[in-house]
Parts: sequence; structure tokens; C-alpha cells
Amino acid sequence: MYLALDGNGPLHAQLTRALKGAILDGRYGEGARLPPSRALAAELGVSRNTVLTAYEQLRAEGFVSARIGSGSYVTPPLHATQVQRPTSTTLPPQSAFARRGRLVHDHGNLPGRAPEGARYCFQYGLPIVNPAVASMWARELARAAAYTSPNYPPTQGLPALREAIGDYLARRRGLVVDPADVVVVSGTQQAISLCLRVLADEGDHAVVEEPQYFAVRELLQLHGARISPVPTDVEGLRCDLLPERSPRLVFVTPSHQFPGGSVLSLARRMELFAYARRHDAWVVEDDYDGEFRYDGRPLAALRSLDRGDRVIYIGSFSKTVFPSLRLGYMVVPRALREDFVTAKWSLDFGSSAIEQAAMASFIASGGFERHLRRSTRILAERREVLMQGLRHYGRGRVRIADSRAGMHVAAWVEGHGAADVERLLAIGLRHGLGLHSILPHYHAPPDRCGLLFGFASLSVAELREALPLFGRCLEEFEREGPAPVAALARQHRGEHHARRQPRQVRGRIRQR
Amino acid sequence: MYLALDGNGPLHAQLTRALKGAILDGRYGEGARLPPSRALAAELGVSRNTVLTAYEQLRAEGFVSARIGSGSYVTPPLHATQVQRPTSTTLPPQSAFARRGRLVHDHGNLPGRAPEGARYCFQYGLPIVNPAVASMWARELARAAAYTSPNYPPTQGLPALREAIGDYLARRRGLVVDPADVVVVSGTQQAISLCLRVLADEGDHAVVEEPQYFAVRELLQLHGARISPVPTDVEGLRCDLLPERSPRLVFVTPSHQFPGGSVLSLARRMELFAYARRHDAWVVEDDYDGEFRYDGRPLAALRSLDRGDRVIYIGSFSKTVFPSLRLGYMVVPRALREDFVTAKWSLDFGSSAIEQAAMASFIASGGFERHLRRSTRILAERREVLMQGLRHYGRGRVRIADSRAGMHVAAWVEGHGAADVERLLAIGLRHGLGLHSILPHYHAPPDRCGLLFGFASLSVAELREALPLFGRCLEEFEREGPAPVAALARQHRGEHHARRQPRQVRGRIRQR
Repeated sequence: MYLALDGNGPLHAQLTRALKGAILDGRYGEGARLPPSRALAAELGVSRNTVLTAYEQLRAEGFVSARIGSGSYVTPPLHATQVQRPTSTTLPPQSAFARRGRLVHDHGNLPGRAPEGARYCFQYGLPIVNPAVASMWARELARAAAYTSPNYPPTQGLPALREAIGDYLARRRGLVVDPADVVVVSGTQQAISLCLRVLADEGDHAVVEEPQYFAVRELLQLHGARISPVPTDVEGLRCDLLPERSPRLVFVTPSHQFPGGSVLSLARRMELFAYARRHDAWVVEDDYDGEFRYDGRPLAALRSLDRGDRVIYIGSFSKTVFPSLRLGYMVVPRALREDFVTAKWSLDFGSSAIEQAAMASFIASGGFERHLRRSTRILAERREVLMQGLRHYGRGRVRIADSRAGMHVAAWVEGHGAADVERLLAIGLRHGLGLHSILPHYHAPPDRCGLLFGFASLSVAELREALPLFGRCLEEFEREGPAPVAALARQHRGEHHARRQPRQVRGRIRQR
Repeated sequence: MYLALDGNGPLHAQLTRALKGAILDGRYGEGARLPPSRALAAELGVSRNTVLTAYEQLRAEGFVSARIGSGSYVTPPLHATQVQRPTSTTLPPQSAFARRGRLVHDHGNLPGRAPEGARYCFQYGLPIVNPAVASMWARELARAAAYTSPNYPPTQGLPALREAIGDYLARRRGLVVDPADVVVVSGTQQAISLCLRVLADEGDHAVVEEPQYFAVRELLQLHGARISPVPTDVEGLRCDLLPERSPRLVFVTPSHQFPGGSVLSLARRMELFAYARRHDAWVVEDDYDGEFRYDGRPLAALRSLDRGDRVIYIGSFSKTVFPSLRLGYMVVPRALREDFVTAKWSLDFGSSAIEQAAMASFIASGGFERHLRRSTRILAERREVLMQGLRHYGRGRVRIADSRAGMHVAAWVEGHGAADVERLLAIGLRHGLGLHSILPHYHAPPDRCGLLFGFASLSVAELREALPLFGRCLEEFEREGPAPVAALARQHRGEHHARRQPRQVRGRIRQR
């Protein structure tokens, strides 16, 4: 008898699986007798105990019955001999969500992914790496593990963390909130997901800034919402261009427009409130890095001006601590709080209690804000070096978008179109530079050559080495000159694939 | 001038907020001049620096402009004086999801919540508390925090954890899986949520076992699915009663029916596969506590027999380690893997990397399975004491449902209807006993008096004290006799409210 053992786990379990396989395949029909244990053991070169254990397991699971003194027989009714697992690995999408997912999302190829082989990567969306924070965090976690209840956490979040967040928001974001209105979530992604569930149905309209964080756009598309992109300028969202058709939601990044960099001006803030009131719409404030501001204290959050309780505020620890920690929070309108908690319950019951307790202690102890202040100082230095370098090596061709906050800067290489971006990225990579296009963050990308420079992952020394390299890349880029558009586009689609393929396996995913 | 400082955060921030409030309320109209800083400082009894800092912040945010030598003036255009935040705290639901949520879910009152004031609580759904595991976990977390990448984790889960889970499933659940088919999730709740997104649209049909884990039912209702409950008996799901109308999904707990306790027999398993194939339906196997089995080795998972790749397997660490840790996993059909990963991305980008790394190490080091074996031994003792006690003190009126696995036992008090359950619970509480009704886990509760006895949270000594108490409760319960049904129902609704109210505030939420 042929029995292939699969090498996974103990021998008796392998033998049990192999025998089940033989029975299910019909190699042992109903009523067939299994070989005597001694004989099978000898044939397979295993101990008799192994065989006996396997037979016992088959009996326990109902595959065979034992007749005393006469061995093990395959049990009726195994009428349903199954077809083999299909070797095909394609199936049509099984829901509207899955159908949209296949159209919209390519998780092998997310914007902002670090390219392989770049010595210096201007990655955006990552906080500065601070080994001291890692060890502080390890201590907080170990301590929290010792005293946190092993029970299911409260869905809305640990009271201690909601209180710590409330205090923090009052101190740093000018936002006075009742901890009862705070919902702890597993990051901004989840917060947006909750907003969609609670506030919008499939087919509803939503406004996003143009450009916007690509994930907001994709989440809206996955939800089946209709997207109205509204342009931004140096004062943020162009509120005069908000659509006449009432949207359910308006997504904004008022403290630091992503990725453009502007701050929503006070006049526009008031216009936005008036619009939301008129259209009975909800405003979602994504305050992803408003903590870092380089020309004075951080500006107050949009929600702090909101007297109509129309703003859902989203904060995240991904940009302030580190993103592998999936923890963020929302401040929600009182009247919808229970809806948000129900939605959170439906997604994951509640966020990990130990991490919540550790974060509560990290904030309450002052460690979090010390880290923020230190980060802001370091980021300010790096930003200064970056700005100087871009001005100096930009050869008069790089226009830097005004931005006095956050951890990235948008820059445009003038005289080039969108088709040239991939070429510039490829040149960068040849020089060991990880450059990033701004275009994936547009709903309708402009025909311009735009880059995003993150400055949190490179030290001042690294920036000083990387920026002259960027200068050389630009030189080469200009020397080559724009290729004939059609041919180029074709060529770069090819290059793009060749370069991206290996990243799907090893590249780290980075965001914003 | 009247300025109320709110006492939150530093003085200058309080003053900034108060001034903004005055401006937004229209108390300072467009073009009005703010009081000279010296005067305001004297009036409020704060330092002049505090006032200057506040004025500077107002300027930075665009509320006032400064004219040199002449003070600060409220900036035009603040045309949009806002209405006050509504004091009303009710709003109609803002989406179909929210509408269903309000009908279906009461997170203040989840089944299985521990009542206040019970000395002994037969809580179900919680693993045994093992201080050694808490300290092992603290060590694993601290170690993982030191070496885990601070980056966004891969959405599908850390490769090390997916491999550890694959090895574990082969060793303990007879399930050979490719780690590429494993998706790490934040617990069973999220796994079910993902199944609904990927596999069902609003209005689709789904089969659940009757009785079923209440959360599965609620998640289906929240999703807008139509539910077909199918009875269970000692062999698990009555496959002969599966509906003729094709469902998209069939949710089962084959290793240990929740809450009934039976094991899905081999014949039924084959029937279920045949049904799923015929109806092109997906089977969701919720293996929430299949690890704990008291009459031999754990039975193989349903998916191990699945040759058509139709079973989505869900495993959880909530019942095996502790539930405050939100970590679980799914094994998904190869052809739908990307759909599941997209859905996971949409919910939270990915689960916390440090906890994933800690769990991978806990499994790979053998610590996890040592803990499981030890837990199984302890649970077996407790279960034995419980069963003996129920038989002895049940006075011939308590029928114990056959169950050889898991951490709870279902029992029926014969001769009483559903209306009597709350009365029995109230009597229990008077004697310091936390008893739990089985009825919330029914789609259509039968008119019987059923209880769920969890035995993981009580030691053998505690069980020995609790069970005679239960005997006394039963005596009292029987002595009182069933009250006239209508009057009773009214009376108990009242009691029920009186008793549940305080729990909403302080009770811990427990599950299954």
C-alpha cells in the first residue's frame, strides 16, 4: 500500500493524515479492512505504537470502526468521496467588496514602498527611528503585560488611555474633549473604515482633497462611495469649489495637507463648517502629523473650532511613535458615539489591551511628549538641511511646496510631465537614491513631475550625502531630456514592472 | 470681559481657547481690538507672558492680526459665526450599517458579562488564568519590541508567525497548510468580519447553527445578511435540514459546537462538504476551542478533510492564551487570498507587529504548546468536578449536554421554561453565584431553562464551594415554582433592568 507521509508534525499524525487521505480518495472503500497494525508498522518502518495511535485517532474521528479481535474497518457512510482541491487559483470575486477590491487595490504595489537597493531613501510617512523609544516601549509593554486584565478589553478603549488622550489633546492640540467621546482604534486606516461604516452607504458621495492620501481614496472606492476630489492650494482645500451635490463626508488634513503641505486657513475652516452645516455633511479631520510644526507651536485642531459637533477627529501614534504599533484614536460626535463603538466591535471587538495600557502609561508619564519634543527638534534640523539641499542642488528647476509642518516636503521638477517621473525614479535608483512620486496620491494626476521627500528616516549626515546625489540625478535627467512621450510611456511601464516585481516579495510597506 | 478658563492644560492654551471661543461666539466682532496684553493679564491675574503667548497663537492661526504698536484686531472674515454645539445627543442613524447596529447590538449588555457581586462566576469564554503565562508573555513582548521592525507590518501577517501557525496546525489540528494561505487577524471577530466582506453582500443568505455564538448572528445582521438557523443535535449540525435556497456561507463550530457542545460527526462533515459543493457555498469553520479535548487527542479540524478548498478556517489565541491579546488567524482558500488581504488592509492595515513577533516566538519556542497541555490537564480536572457536582446537586432535574471538549458545559433545568431563566439567575446572584443563560445564543430561543457553565475561571476548590450553592439555588428555584407566566415575565423584565444597569458601567465583557 502506498502511503505518503508529509513530514509535518509527529509520525502518528502524519500517518493519520495519510490514511484519511487514502480513505477520502476512495483507495479504501466502505467496509474495507485496514492492514493489521503490526504489518503496516513493519512495512513503513515505524513503531507499532505509531500505527496504533493513528488507528485510534481514526476511530475517534469516525473514519473506521474496530471489531474486537478482527481489526479496523472503514466506516459507512463515506458516500461523499470528494473531488480533489482545484489546482486553479482563480475564482471570480465573491462579493461587491471583493470585486471593487480587485479593481482598486494592489497590495503588492503600494505607493511609498521603499525600493530595493537604495542607499538613501527619502521615505515619507515614517517617524524618526529612535532606539531609546524602542526600549522605553519594551519596558512599558512588559510592565503593562503584568497588570493588564487578561480579559476582553472594553470595545471603546481602556478608560486610562482615553483619559490620557484627552489630556494630551488639550495640552498639544488645543482640543478639549470628554474621554467618553474618544474611541481607541487600531490606527488611522481603521478610523477611516469606521467613518465609512457609520456615516456612508454604498453610492454615497464623499469629498477628498486633491491630492489626497491614496488610502483614503482607495478605502472610499472599496466602500463603493463616489468620490469628488476638490483642489487644494496654499490655504488648503478650495472651499469655493466644494460640490453643490451634498456629500456625506468631507475628508481633510487641515493641519498639514497630505501630501501638498499647506495649512487650512482660518477663513477656509469657517467656510468648511458653513458648507458642512448647509449640506448636513460630516467633516473627517485626519490629523496625521499635526504635532510637528516648525514655525511655532502646533496649530489647534480643526475640531477645536467646531461648535456644531460635525467634525470627526482622527489621531494616530503611527507618525509619533512607530507604525508597527497599530494604535490610534478618534473623537466622535456624542450623538453617534454608540454607532462608532458598535462598528468597532464588529471589526475586532476592541484593540489589544496591553498596548493600550502601555500607551496610556507612556503618555501619562510624560515620556510621549518628551519624545515628541525631541523628535520635533531633530526633524527641524533635517528639514532645514533638506530644504537647503533642494534649493541648492535643484538647479533652479525644483519648486518646493511651502510646508512648515510634518515629515515630508512636496517638490516639483519644472519643465517635465508625469511621463517623466518614472524615469527620474529610475535614475535615482541607479545612483542609490530612493525617490518617491507624488502622483499616486492624486485622483487625477496632473501632467507634472512631482516628488515627495520624506526627511524622517535620513540623518543630517545622510541627507548631506544624498542631496548632492540628487543633484547629479537631476543633471542626468535634464541631459537625457524628455523622450518622445508615447515611446517613453511604453518603455517605462516595462521598467516599472521589472523593478517592482522583486519588491513585492521583500519590500517594506510604508505609508504617507 | 468674561473669559472662562477650562482648566485643561497650560494657562496660555486655556486662554487661547477662551479667546477663540469669544471670537467664534461673536463676542468680539470683526475688526474688534483685543484688550492690551498688560490690562488683560492684570484682570485675569496671569503673567503678561501668558497673554502674549495666547495672542501670538491667535495670530498664527489667523484669528487676529497685529498692527504694529496698536494691538491685536479680530481678522475678517469670520463671517461664519457658528451655532452652538447641539445639546441634543440623539441623531438618526447615518448609514444602513448604523441603522442595523442600533436594532441589533447593545454593547452595554453583551451575553456572558460577569454580574457584579458574584463570589463564584461560571463564566464561559475565558481561558484559565495562569500567572506564569502572563510573565512569559511580558518577556516575549519585551524581547519582540527590541527586534521587531518599527515599520508598518505586512498586511497578511509576519512571515515568522504565519510559519509558526502552519507548524502548529500540522502538529495539533491535523491541518497541513501553506503559510502563504494564512492571514493573521485581530481575533475571531475580525476573521468573521473579513469573511462577510469578502464572501457576502447585503441581502445574501447565511446558515448558522442553532444555537450559535451570539456574535456571529449579530455580525451577520449588521452586515445585512439573511440568517437561516439550522438545528444541531448530538452529532452537530443537522445537515439534512440545510436550506434548499443556496446560502453564500455556512458558519459551523465542528470541533465543539458552541454553545451546545457536540462534535460534528464524520458523516455530517461529508454531508456538509457535499452540500457546500452543490450550492457553491463557503464553509466557515470557527475552531474557537478545539484544542481542549478530554477523551483523547484533539480531533482534526474540518478543513483537514476539505479537498475542495471550500473551508475558511478560523483559529484564535483568545481561548488559548488570553483574550485581551487580540490575535487570531485564518486559513483561506488560495483563490481568494488576495481578496482577504485587501479586506484586512481596509480594516486596519495589519495587526500589531510586536504582538505578532512575540506570538511567533511563543509558539516556536514550544512555550505555547506546553501551556496548552498544562491548561488541558487543569481544565480536565475542573470539568470533572463540575460534571460530578452538577449531577450530584442537580437533584435529577439538570440534564447536562454531552460535551467532551472546550471550557464550558451546557445544562438544562427540566420542567422550566425560558421565562424562568432570569429568576434562576437572580436566585444565583442572591447566593453569590454568577450563572449564565444559554438563551442569548439562540436565534429563536426555545421555551426551556438552559444555562452555560464555564469552568475555566474557577479553581477546583472554588468549584467545590460553588456547586453546593448551586444546589441550594435549585432548591429555592423549585420551591418557588414557576410563577404565573405573564406576571412573572413583567416582574422579571423589571428585575432584569434593575440588576443590569450597574453592570453597564463596571462589568467586564466576556465572550463565549
